[in-house]
Formats: sequence, structure tokens, C-alpha cells
Amino acid sequence: MLLRSVFLLLLLVSAVAPSRADDGYRLWLKYDRIADAPTRQQYQRAAQFIASPGASPVLRAASTELQRGLSSLLGQAVPILAAPGTRTGGIVLRVDKAARANGQSLKPEGYRIFSEKNNLVITGRTDAAVLYGAFALLRQVQTRQPLAGLSIASNPRIGFRLLNHWDNPNGTVERGYAGSSIWKWYELPERLDPRYTDYARANASIGINGVVLNNVNASARYLSADYLAKVAALAGVMRPYGIRVYLSVLWAAPKVIGGLPTADPLDPAVQQWWSAKSDEIYQAIPDFGGFLVKANSEGEPGPQDYHRTHADGANMLAHALGRHDGVVMWRAFVYKANSNGDRFKEAYEEFQPLDGKFDPKVLVQVKNGPIDFQAREPFHPLFGAMPRTPLLLEVQLTQEYLGFATHLVYLAPLIKECLEADTYAQGKGSTVARVVDGSLDQHALSGIAGVANIGADRNWTGHPVGQANWYAFGRLAWDHTLSAQAIAQEWTRMTLTTEPAAVRTITRVLGQSRSIYVRYTTPLGLHHIMGESLHYGPQPWLAQAGRPDWTAVYYHKADSSGLGFDRTATGSNALALYKPEVQQQWGNPRTCPLNYLLWFHHVAWRQPLSTGRTLWNELCTRYYTGADSVRWMQQQWAAARPALDPALYADVATRLQIQRREALWWRDACVLYFQTLARQPIPAPLAPPTRSLADIKQLVQLYQLK
Amino acid sequence: MLLRSVFLLLLLVSAVAPSRADDGYRLWLKYDRIADAPTRQQYQRAAQFIASPGASPVLRAASTELQRGLSSLLGQAVPILAAPGTRTGGIVLRVDKAARANGQSLKPEGYRIFSEKNNLVITGRTDAAVLYGAFALLRQVQTRQPLAGLSIASNPRIGFRLLNHWDNPNGTVERGYAGSSIWKWYELPERLDPRYTDYARANASIGINGVVLNNVNASARYLSADYLAKVAALAGVMRPYGIRVYLSVLWAAPKVIGGLPTADPLDPAVQQWWSAKSDEIYQAIPDFGGFLVKANSEGEPGPQDYHRTHADGANMLAHALGRHDGVVMWRAFVYKANSNGDRFKEAYEEFQPLDGKFDPKVLVQVKNGPIDFQAREPFHPLFGAMPRTPLLLEVQLTQEYLGFATHLVYLAPLIKECLEADTYAQGKGSTVARVVDGSLDQHALSGIAGVANIGADRNWTGHPVGQANWYAFGRLAWDHTLSAQAIAQEWTRMTLTTEPAAVRTITRVLGQSRSIYVRYTTPLGLHHIMGESLHYGPQPWLAQAGRPDWTAVYYHKADSSGLGFDRTATGSNALALYKPEVQQQWGNPRTCPLNYLLWFHHVAWRQPLSTGRTLWNELCTRYYTGADSVRWMQQQWAAARPALDPALYADVATRLQIQRREALWWRDACVLYFQTLARQPIPAPLAPPTRSLADIKQLVQLYQLK
Repeated sequence: MLLRSVFLLLLLVSAVAPSRADDGYRLWLKYDRIADAPTRQQYQRAAQFIASPGASPVLRAASTELQRGLSSLLGQAVPILAAPGTRTGGIVLRVDKAARANGQSLKPEGYRIFSEKNNLVITGRTDAAVLYGAFALLRQVQTRQPLAGLSIASNPRIGFRLLNHWDNPNGTVERGYAGSSIWKWYELPERLDPRYTDYARANASIGINGVVLNNVNASARYLSADYLAKVAALAGVMRPYGIRVYLSVLWAAPKVIGGLPTADPLDPAVQQWWSAKSDEIYQAIPDFGGFLVKANSEGEPGPQDYHRTHADGANMLAHALGRHDGVVMWRAFVYKANSNGDRFKEAYEEFQPLDGKFDPKVLVQVKNGPIDFQAREPFHPLFGAMPRTPLLLEVQLTQEYLGFATHLVYLAPLIKECLEADTYAQGKGSTVARVVDGSLDQHALSGIAGVANIGADRNWTGHPVGQANWYAFGRLAWDHTLSAQAIAQEWTRMTLTTEPAAVRTITRVLGQSRSIYVRYTTPLGLHHIMGESLHYGPQPWLAQAGRPDWTAVYYHKADSSGLGFDRTATGSNALALYKPEVQQQWGNPRTCPLNYLLWFHHVAWRQPLSTGRTLWNELCTRYYTGADSVRWMQQQWAAARPALDPALYADVATRLQIQRREALWWRDACVLYFQTLARQPIPAPLAPPTRSLADIKQLVQLYQLK
Repeated sequence: MLLRSVFLLLLLVSAVAPSRADDGYRLWLKYDRIADAPTRQQYQRAAQFIASPGASPVLRAASTELQRGLSSLLGQAVPILAAPGTRTGGIVLRVDKAARANGQSLKPEGYRIFSEKNNLVITGRTDAAVLYGAFALLRQVQTRQPLAGLSIASNPRIGFRLLNHWDNPNGTVERGYAGSSIWKWYELPERLDPRYTDYARANASIGINGVVLNNVNASARYLSADYLAKVAALAGVMRPYGIRVYLSVLWAAPKVIGGLPTADPLDPAVQQWWSAKSDEIYQAIPDFGGFLVKANSEGEPGPQDYHRTHADGANMLAHALGRHDGVVMWRAFVYKANSNGDRFKEAYEEFQPLDGKFDPKVLVQVKNGPIDFQAREPFHPLFGAMPRTPLLLEVQLTQEYLGFATHLVYLAPLIKECLEADTYAQGKGSTVARVVDGSLDQHALSGIAGVANIGADRNWTGHPVGQANWYAFGRLAWDHTLSAQAIAQEWTRMTLTTEPAAVRTITRVLGQSRSIYVRYTTPLGLHHIMGESLHYGPQPWLAQAGRPDWTAVYYHKADSSGLGFDRTATGSNALALYKPEVQQQWGNPRTCPLNYLLWFHHVAWRQPLSTGRTLWNELCTRYYTGADSVRWMQQQWAAARPALDPALYADVATRLQIQRREALWWRDACVLYFQTLARQPIPAPLAPPTRSLADIKQLVQLYQLK
């Protein structure tokens, strides 16, 4: 009879809660029960309870997350106690203002995990530190690391670890490929979508401590009392997860919503308006993070409208923040209207002379490269060139130029390439990472921002592997010395599978994916040859646009003699913006790494390269092998299938089919177009495209129709 | 030991599959297990198996859905057999080309359910009929109707039962308030989001048999070979659910993607282009439904660009469809550029003279009212005025003018009000419903379209009660004689709760909700006084816009003497477009129903109305009681709380808070603005608004900032 009941129970359970396909919503915080019983039991013994002393919202978030994660991973109830008493075999949270590790005081957000009296203690100087430690402990279990004798200490290397949302008040996301904005402005402040909390959890789990809620092409709405109430409601959701909210601001706000006749930063009424607005903001949001500003860039208003400098503008806002604990992040992504020079140099020329002129509350936010988030760029020449200014590194997680949500491109190698680049600002070892983390020039402030790839799609990022980019950004922001591969392994284990062979296969694919993307789209240092406006697909033939530096020909400079942008002294001389050691690396076309070749040199089609092939043959070879490598990715993914959730497997597999189709599109478009100038055959054994350039142009045009 | 196992099992189950909050994704197809054991057992006995003879995709969809629904509702396995054999107590699907009900042959989509040899037989002449019958049987169980002696027969009254999506290729939805488009064009044709199937299931469950995939402001992209492959992939998902796909087409497509110099419908090359395009479409999608066209309307191109008529255009497309089984749906939503007359009359003046001139494959698609989906409109004067043309009724489910996704407005009463309106075209009883279903004028074709309120938000419609509008549209499209209340009850039982008192409470709220919305936004026949462009919030003071008929003052005509648009013979005489009986109803301001008063009459502020109050006092009273009624809705919703899923309860409760805030915004904006002209106090005991008109104007302006 009892057996029958068990049977009925099982039947009922399967009827009521059928095992569902993994829709990706849970990200890397899946907490699926550990299948292997001995492993599970080992963790069970170490996680019999959670002892948390305080009832602060942040500590409550930490203990609740531990309970949620551990009870689910281990399949056992894990009670939360106020104190361990005499119990052992549990996890103890402890805020200790004097907490140290490795003989040094921990940073305010740094944590330490260690064994004490048969308990695991998670400690740090602040509640937030303990929260980060809690997620670190969960990560240990999720990636199946042993807990016995565990001893970890970790400090964040960068202070401001931010997501930048390019989300608009109407719910669209500029350059977003994962559905609409997760922020439901019309529903705020009354309704708090439960998703906001899951978003905060995910960010906290990887150490992100700030989010800029709105697009840098900012609406003035956000500074109105009505919208500040909405922002405050979101800040309330973020606060228990150690996350501060920031706003992008429209420079012209004092005119647009303040009724002032000017937005001149030296005008006392303007200063007063921003000062009062700051006070109003901090009244509603006491831990407000500060302002992000895109000024005098791509049509946005700014201080130059009044013949003031970027420093005048940034400093005025910094003063307006006054005694409040907030910062100004001022973007260096500027390029003059109707430029006919080299856009590569423009941010440098505008900002480098301002070094030393910024208020201590200002960070200048610099994109990783000098153009605009291309698949590969040399590091931005401002890094190392503004020692008296904290430079905040901006990278793009949303794949504007990297295949939207249909291409699998793991971005950690791209970010690492920038971080590890040596500026030689203070001799060898002056990496971008050391500029950004403040250690090179002893800055108190340091920051890094990722342009979010997050939308309201069920799985947050459209492409399931887009989640890995969100994850990797947070992990690198916390510790830029982590390797791209190690992060890929963590993410794969937490998100996809812990089966060792599959983990190896998948991390190999992730590790190669960005190089493959570069090969079939912009090999050898090509850049900015994508479709106009939409940035979807190839358009190397684009010669007419709103501005010359919005075309493709401006950048590749292909002609009958060769290909590439001469940025040496015989050309735009942008190379001279770098330190001599860097110039030496990149300045000679015979020794310049092929990955950067066409960034700096116009090379003859028949010029032999270090590979032994001519430029033309090497170009073709890379386009073809790049596109073929997508097949390799498909095969690898198929090999991992048995270890993967079927729905997730299928999702990525079908996206790889699309990627294969689009890779061929890129390949054919580029080799056929460049062939019209190189006037050479596709080298054997590569088979020439079976479609014509005219066909492809039509295809590109199609995607540009309204 | 066994007990302990049961305990462990329970623990495991709860750890692995914690009971989740209802996120609304499952719509009205929830299939939650019936909690009451005797009820469940009764159904269990009648649903021990499903016997399905055929393996067609549609029949498979029917049997699979029955299995899914019944096994989940009843908590028992329900096997699918090829034939019942000697078994009884099951459900038998049977396609019977000679199936009849009530002495008449069933329509091809009509179904019959009856008992035979202790089995329940679902039959019809086609596979699709059986699918509809399967959903009808599920609905019986979901709404807890008895199955014993069940005998139902049902034919659809309208042939084309369509959703119109206003979805754009970039993923936005025009006038969509539930996130981005559910169609992921960049992922098609390779990737078929599992959501597409759930969308098809939901539509089939309410009898919707066609979907126009894209916005009437159409991109030419959809007619390209690349996009047709994507459309074909979607058609493949829809087909097993009896749903055909249709496309909105850009009139200028032969120029934009065909390379022709003209889109003149009388040009042989244009005709040839459309004909070849139709053949290409049917090659890819053999059951393609046809074209929807918005031409010469709000800037869209059309045949008038070539001095041809709408009939010339529609007929050319109909001929292009040729032998293929498709139709042309030609929208009558037109109004001349720079009109200074009465927009009310324009569609009539353009289309009525064309009656009899359309090809038999053409339906003219007419909005319910003469202006544009206002909260209340008189029925469109074209209904009853084009007896030789099948008129397809277009209603709007997305709440463009009805509170976006933050106001609870159940639309069935609005749709019914139109359907039941009497045109008197052939004397009393010539309702719009009879015009639309073709019975009045014996048309072979009949159709109804709902502009979808569906987006990629997890719960599909943003506001959970938006689901009721999707549901009600489908049910009314199938059978317009169903009452709004009966449909509300069905939906509530299937979606929210079967607890009788809660069902009563909720259906009462649904039933009142649209009247309440009208009262606090546009009482007494006011219309088109919403915010410019965005259509969010009130802007009755709007006097300048791109066109006079895009302002508010054009419609309310408020001045110091009174309020309302005189459309009698002393005014625009739009009333003369109706039959004399209708003119008589509405023509006299003393007897005109108050709901339509200001649609047709300019009434003095101090004019006493049938309520005993003056116009001004009645206006104020309605605005105030309307806004106060939102409080009543909140109270009612709170009363139903114990019977509701907590997450769903909270979602609606917080949206009602927003609705309350916005209702007060509407109330205050309108009474304060009209007061500037009426120059009378807010009548006691109503308390004057505590904010000024200037404050509210600022608030409205804020929401119109980019």
C-alpha cells in the first residue's frame, strides 16, 4: 500500500511538475542537484547550517542565497541560524572590520573563506564582502571544488565594476539583441518585476557593484522627479546586493527640463541647477553612484556647445555632486563632426591635453580601442597617456560588431588582449590593466564598464553563450589576472555541464571563437567594414555615408595597389600617439603582428607576409579558414551533446547553423569585393564563391530596408 | 525505511522542482491538477485513453494536447491509442467528412462532441475541426463542466479569424506594450523558438486560424526570398494548429525590391511582378493566407500615387494571387492628408463609392469605429453601407488608447458593443455582427481581425488581464453571440481560479473595467484627447500637431459655450452617413445616449442632461467617479486574493496602483483643462484637484521627451 502511494506520488509529481527544458533564465546560478552521491554527501557534511549574525539586507541576501543554492545543490534542508553555538559542519558568516588576509587588511569588498572549528567561515570587513564570499563559496560547490581545508582570500582589483545599459525609456535597447529592456519604466515605481532581483543576484555573484540604468544617448526624463522615484525603486532592489545605481545624463537637461536658457557649465544658474538636482537625487537615493556623460559626441549636446572643454563640463558636475559620495564618468568616445583626418587620433587629441585638469571625482571612460568596439582593435592610445587622470575602461558585451545574438563569440580573450597590452607608459609592464586598476599611477579611483548584452529575452542575452560574456566581464572586473580559459571553465561548469570531456570541448570552442570570428569578418587588422547603421553583415564597398568616417573605404583604403590604413609617419601618423616601444612593435610592416597589420599599414596585394603567402592569398585563406572553423565549432558542440540539456544544446546548435550561413556571407562579400581591386584569383585550393558580388550587395541592402 | 524514502523523495522533489510562482506564461492553458478529488475522479473515469486514427500533424497536435492537458489536470497517465478497440471510458477522435449536427452538415471547421458506447467522440469534417473540438473538451474540464452525457456542436460564425501583428523586422512592435516582438527574424529560419509552438497552441485553443505576421506599416523585406524562407519556417510551426500565415505588404515593393520604376497597379510589369511573387510565395508556403494592405494611409504608398483607386490596387493583388487560395485584405483606415473637414467621414467617402467594384477575393478591413480605436466609438458608418463587399472587422487588442499595459480593461464589452450595434441596413436587426459574418448580405467570405497585444514579455501581454482580451477576441471571432460575461467567466476559471465567489468578483471587475476606463478618460463621448504621438496620458489642450486631426481640440471643440463635435446637419453632418434609424437615435442631443453625446453634439456647459446634472457637472462627476472606481477595482481584487496565485495577485494589484495614479492624472488634466473654458467650479461634494494644470502639462511633456 505504501509502495503504491510512493508510485502515485511519483506519478503526481511528474504530472504536476514535469521536468522542463532549461530555458537559460537561471544563468550560472542553476543550483541543480549534484548527481554524484559521494560528491554530494561530502558537501552535505560541510553545509548543514548557515549561521548569520546580522539582519542587514545585504547579509540577509547572502544567507538566503547560500540557503537557496546549497539546499538545491545538495538536496538537503540548510537552516539559517543566528549563531553556530556549538554546532559544527556549517557555514558561518562574519563581518569583521579588522579582517585580514595574507598579512594585509582586506579591501572593503574583499573576502576570506577559511576553516575554523569544523565550520567554514566567510568573512570580510563589510556586509558586501561577506556577500561576495557567499557567492564564491557557492561557486566552489557549483564547480565541484573541494571544501576541505578551504582557504581563499580575494580582493577586487578594480573599484567601480559597472554595467552600462544602453536602454531607452521606450523600452528599446540601443544595440541590444536580446529583446526589450528589462526595465519596465511604465510600471515603476509601483511594480517591481521579480526579474530585477534575479538580475541583481547575478551581478552580485560576479562582483558587479554598479549599474548605469540608461543609454548614454540619454533622455532628460530620468532627472525628473517622476523618474527619480522609479530609479529609487530600482535602487531599492539593487541595494541588498551591493549594487549602486547610476544614471547617464543629457548635458542639456537644465534647458530641457530645467527651463534654463543655457547649459553652459560656467553659468551659475546651470551649476545651481545641477547642484540642486544632485541633492534631490541623494535625498531619494542615498547611495546613488553618480553620472555617466556622453557629451559632444555623435550629436549629443555638451560643454563645447558653449566653447568650454570636457574638463569644464565634468568638473562642474563633480562640484554639483558636492559632499555626496558619487562620481562623474566622462566618456572619451568623441570624434569631430565631418572629420577628414583619422578618427583613430581624435579622442586622444581632445582628451590627452586635459590630463591633470579633471576634478578628483571624475573618471574618464575610454573604450578599449580607438575606433569603436571592433572585433579586434589595438589598445586605445589614451591608456598610458593620461597618468594624472583615472581612466575607466569601457568594453562592449553586446555584440554590436560581433554577430548580434546569432554568433558564438566568447569575449574574454578580447578583453584580456586589451588588459594585457603594454602601454610602456612607465617602461615595460605598464599594461592597460595596471592603468585601469590604478596601480600604475596610484589612483584612488578605478573602474571598468561593460556595455550590457542583457534584454528581456527569457535567457537574458539572446545567444546562450552571451551569458558567458556577462559572467566573464564581472570576473575580470574583479580580478583581471584570471585567464580567459579559467573563466570559461567556471562558467561552463556552472551553466552547462560538469562532465570533464564536455567542459574541455566547450571551453576550447569558447577560447577559439573570437579568433574565428575575426578571421571570417576582419582578418589581418581590417576594421569597420560592416553594414551601414545596422552594423549587421558585411559592407566593405560602403563609400558614401553621413560622414566619411562612417564608410568602410575610409578604413580599409583598398585600391589597386593594396589594402590597409597607413597610420605610420607616411600616413596619418596615429602610431605616433603610442610610446616608442609600441611604435616599434607595430611600425614596421614586415614585423608588425599580422593581427594588427592593416590597422597601421597599406600593404601591397602581392607583398609576401610572414606566413609565406602574399597579402591577397593570406587574406583569402583567413576568410576561408575562418568560415570553415564554424563547421569545426558545430562538430565540437555536437560532440558535447550527451552532456548537455537538450533544449540548450538545440538552441546553440541552431544558432551555429545561422553563424555558418552568415560567416559564408562575410567571406564571400569580402573576398569578392576586395578581388575587384586586387584583381587576382581566389588561390587554390580554395573554391571561389558560387554567388556574385551583386547578389550579396542585394542581400545586404535587404537588411537595411526599414 | 520506506516511509523515510517517501520523505526523502518529497524533499528531493521540493529541492529540484520548487513550487514556482505563476509567471503567466501558460496563459489559459494551465492544466493545473484539479484539487478536488471527487471531481477529478469523475473526469478520470471519462478520460482513460485517447484514440486517434490518423497521424496527420493536425490530429497529432489534437491528441498530444489532449494528453498533455488531461494527464496534467487529472494526474493520471492518458495513453494515445490508434483505435479504442473494445475499450470504453476514453476519448475518440474521428474525422468524418459527412459529420452533421442538429440536422445540418457541419462547417469544415465545426466540431461535435457526443457520447457513444461509453466513449466521448470528438468529430468534424476536417482535422482542424477535431483539433477545435479537442480544445473545447479541455475547456469543459478546465471550467469544471460535467462530461456525462456531453453533447456539443459548434460552428464558427466567421471564416477568417485573424490576429494582426504590428511587429517590425527590427523586433519592435508598433503600439506594443509587452516587450519586443515574439518573432526573432535574425534567428529564422534555422532556429524555431519553442515559444512559437505555444503561441500556436494558444491561438488554436480559441479558434484563431490565421496570423498576419508583420506590421501594416510594412517593410519590403518580407517579400524577399530570404524573408520568405523565414516566413515559411513559421508557417511550418503554425500549420499543425490550423493556422495560416499572412503578410502585410508594402505597396511600393515592386520598386523597392523589384527594381521596377513604378508600382502602378495597371502597369503590366507591376502586375507580372506581383503574380510571380505570389507564385514564389505559394511555392514556399502552399497554404499561405494572403495579403493585408495599408495603402495611401498615414504616409504609406498606394495606388492613389498613380491616380488609381483602392479597388484598382486590391483587385490587381487579387488577380496576382491567381489560382492560389489566398485573399486580399484591404484596409479602409484612410484619411486625406491635411484634412480640415471631419476625419469621421473620410474612409466612408473614399470606400463607399467603391462598393461592388472589388474582386471576389478582396475583403475590405474596417476598424470598429470611424476614428481610431478610441475607448468608445460609434460603429463605423461603412458597416451596412457596402453590401456588395465583404467587410472584415478590425478591433485593437493592444491598448494603444486604453492604458497600455498598466490599465486593467477587459475589451469584450467594447467589441460586443460594436458587433451588436444595429446598422439598420436591411431594417432592424441588421447588426454589425451580421454584416461581418456575411449573413446579412450572403457573402462567402467573412473575417475579423484583432491587432495583437502580444509581445515577448514572459506573460505575453504585459498586463495579465491582457490575456483575457486575446482570449475573448478568439472566442468572439468563433461565436459572436457569446456574452462578454460568459467569456470572462471561462477565462477566469481557466486562468485564475475556479473558486466560485472569486470568479464572480473577478468577472464583475472585468465586466465594469472598460466603462470605468471610459469614465476617467473620455466620458460622454469625448475622444482623441490623449497625449501626442505616444498616446500615453491626457493632453486635451493639444492644439498644434503635424495635422489638425492629430490634435485634441479638433475633436472636443471645447470653447466658452460648450463641448463636443457637432456632427449633425448644423455641423459636419457625419451623422448623415448612417441610416435614418441610427440618425434618429443619435441626432437629437436631448435623447442621444450620453455615451455618444459629444461624438455628435456641441453641448452647452450649463445644458441639463438626462441625469439631472448640467453637462459640466456630469462631466466632472464622471471623471471623479471613474477615478474612484479604480479604488473599487482594487478592493474587489483584494477580496479575491485568497483564491489567487500570489505572484499573479501581486502583479495585478501593483498595476492597479499605477492605474489609480494614472486615472487621477487623467481626471485632473481633463477637469482642470475644460474648466479653463467652462469657467465653473468643480461641483460639490467633489474636491478640486490639489495640483495645477501647469504641473500636469509638465508631467505630460515629460513623457514626450525622447
